[in-house]
Amino acid sequence: MSKTIAINAGSSTLKFQLFEMPSENVIAKGLFERIGMDDAIVDISYGNDEKYHQVMPINDHEVAVNFLLKQLLSLAIIGDYNEITGVGHRVVAGGEYFKDSVLIDDDVIAKIDELSDYAPLHNPANLTGIKAFRKILPNVTSVAVFDTAFHQTMPEVNYMYSIPYEWYEKYGARKYGAHGTSHRYVANRAAEIIGKPLKDLKMITLHLGAGASITAIKDGQSFDTSMGFTPLAGVTMATRSGDIDASLVSWMQGKLNISDPEEMIDILNHKSGLVGVSGVSADMRDLEKVMDTNHRAKLARDIWINRVIRYIGQYVAEMNGLDVLVFTAGVGENDIGIRQSVADGLSYFGVGVDPDKNNIRGVERDLSSAAATVKTLLVPTDEELMIARDVERLKK
Amino acid sequence: MSKTIAINAGSSTLKFQLFEMPSENVIAKGLFERIGMDDAIVDISYGNDEKYHQVMPINDHEVAVNFLLKQLLSLAIIGDYNEITGVGHRVVAGGEYFKDSVLIDDDVIAKIDELSDYAPLHNPANLTGIKAFRKILPNVTSVAVFDTAFHQTMPEVNYMYSIPYEWYEKYGARKYGAHGTSHRYVANRAAEIIGKPLKDLKMITLHLGAGASITAIKDGQSFDTSMGFTPLAGVTMATRSGDIDASLVSWMQGKLNISDPEEMIDILNHKSGLVGVSGVSADMRDLEKVMDTNHRAKLARDIWINRVIRYIGQYVAEMNGLDVLVFTAGVGENDIGIRQSVADGLSYFGVGVDPDKNNIRGVERDLSSAAATVKTLLVPTDEELMIARDVERLKK
Repeated sequence: MSKTIAINAGSSTLKFQLFEMPSENVIAKGLFERIGMDDAIVDISYGNDEKYHQVMPINDHEVAVNFLLKQLLSLAIIGDYNEITGVGHRVVAGGEYFKDSVLIDDDVIAKIDELSDYAPLHNPANLTGIKAFRKILPNVTSVAVFDTAFHQTMPEVNYMYSIPYEWYEKYGARKYGAHGTSHRYVANRAAEIIGKPLKDLKMITLHLGAGASITAIKDGQSFDTSMGFTPLAGVTMATRSGDIDASLVSWMQGKLNISDPEEMIDILNHKSGLVGVSGVSADMRDLEKVMDTNHRAKLARDIWINRVIRYIGQYVAEMNGLDVLVFTAGVGENDIGIRQSVADGLSYFGVGVDPDKNNIRGVERDLSSAAATVKTLLVPTDEELMIARDVERLKK
Repeated sequence: MSKTIAINAGSSTLKFQLFEMPSENVIAKGLFERIGMDDAIVDISYGNDEKYHQVMPINDHEVAVNFLLKQLLSLAIIGDYNEITGVGHRVVAGGEYFKDSVLIDDDVIAKIDELSDYAPLHNPANLTGIKAFRKILPNVTSVAVFDTAFHQTMPEVNYMYSIPYEWYEKYGARKYGAHGTSHRYVANRAAEIIGKPLKDLKMITLHLGAGASITAIKDGQSFDTSMGFTPLAGVTMATRSGDIDASLVSWMQGKLNISDPEEMIDILNHKSGLVGVSGVSADMRDLEKVMDTNHRAKLARDIWINRVIRYIGQYVAEMNGLDVLVFTAGVGENDIGIRQSVADGLSYFGVGVDPDKNNIRGVERDLSSAAATVKTLLVPTDEELMIARDVERLKK
């Protein structure tokens, strides 16, 4: 049986998951951290709950990939490099070039590089992973899977901002969205669970993790999504502001006497959201521990819930209907109270969650109450599996 | 019978409307333009469709007010200054100080001045009108009516942004909204037309003019509104962008090589919205003339409609219900096609507009179709009358 590896390379990290295909069994997964340092960390889990842990110097991503492949052999996870027949790479920004995952060639690499302008931290990091694997396994099918590709079906009226048109024509200033691989996975899975074709369902998928985005899915395609030109926009997140009045950026820049506008955007990305409002933590679980006595912690959580409810309302209006609501990602899969509050707030739309069914974490389940006219599902996301499946699909 | 004058002073303009109270008959109205210039323009209409027009040097607002009062006498609109028993002034920014209209005293003037930080073009202009009247008619009841006051009832969860909390504590960075006097007027009028107490209705008021804002009204109070810290936020407008990804501001600032962030906000306020997308006009009527052959004109109009529909959806979700939808202001009162498209797009919510009833401009009417479960009304706004009523209310 052939094996496919899903890769998510960050600037100093490399996450992987190795699947046996077509069974889709995960046979190993792991994480390299602090790449470029003398005390880089390697963690691999495999087999019957076995763990490999090592601290060592790792100079760059090529060294990491070389070491990873050697360890797969020496830990007997694979018997030969030839067993690996496909590599799928997560890439953050696909711009308007990539409407689906693609086989990687020199042209694709050049375009991912060009698109670094939209994701200056992520695309170059993704490329280091791509290049390392191409060097070491040059003959293996290699596929790029873009966070933005799923959202390329959005109609113009939804992805265009009301800004000077030239900003779009010359610079590509528009909504691209993100988390596309996750939204695509859970949307398809939800349709399977319900037993209806995705194209016949008006669905809203809620990817609610530290980063969070909400997607309206109509006719089987992404119709709108809450993240924007960048992942800053949309709902309140762990450390990101989501939507704000844009004029606040320059006004606060003046108040804080900050000269570089990028510093403002950095604050909005890293010191806002739950942690900015609460002053306590970016982690919803920490806020919930103290919210009975800490007003700002409760406020942060209430704002977070409010923005999710408002985006759902937007998309129900935009699609002029709603059949299915899907919770996924860290908070969506594990926070029982948040799911209940969101559903309770939408009773007018026919949304309802049964508290007993909802009393669960991280498993696929139909949570809908008996009276609900909209289905509410919990579907744990699996971006790595989606990447592996795309590799299989494009290999043929 | 006493007379009350409603004043809206801009940086180089002064609009007025003179009411006979309590009959609320308009006995004169007019506009001063180009105040500060040698060729300032004065227009007054009064009596039985009579017009006064004059071009003359007008040095400042005090000169304008002096001239206005003299003209009211010499045109025999009033017989004596004593007939004017109240003056109501529109003020743009009331911050968190003003939750209702107030009698003007030195403290109020100091606060309006202090709040100029939030509305640097408007509050100082509003103050010139207030000061001119206080000097010339020092003993007349003088009332400030704030655009923001109606929205001071918004709950914290709705007015707070997910930004560092200190930005709110130290600098007042939050949602204030605008058009409050208009939303308040049409909401109350709509409730009267329907014959139910406003406090029992979940209502969304759509003030759709060159500037546009949408307000959710619950328990008789503003519950949320689409404009934000400034009037830039919310739906697409004639020249304003409405909501965008805030990170686009700094990114485009780099692309355009603009050093002053305020210049970016200026573009978003004055060169975006309908005119930015279409490249044709900021006026919806111009776009509608060419939209069959001009893609960008049609796109601009489609985006405009889409954002209105999305905001309505947000507020239906946030209020968890909807009883009444109210159209007002230039586009809302006069654009039959826009009203129809917005209502058609919301059929899932039980909104429906009868095309025959809707075939009307600028008059109060219930537009709802027979099948609709939500009432849709057309209510022409009258901010000046609301100002005059506030003067009467506070005089007692």
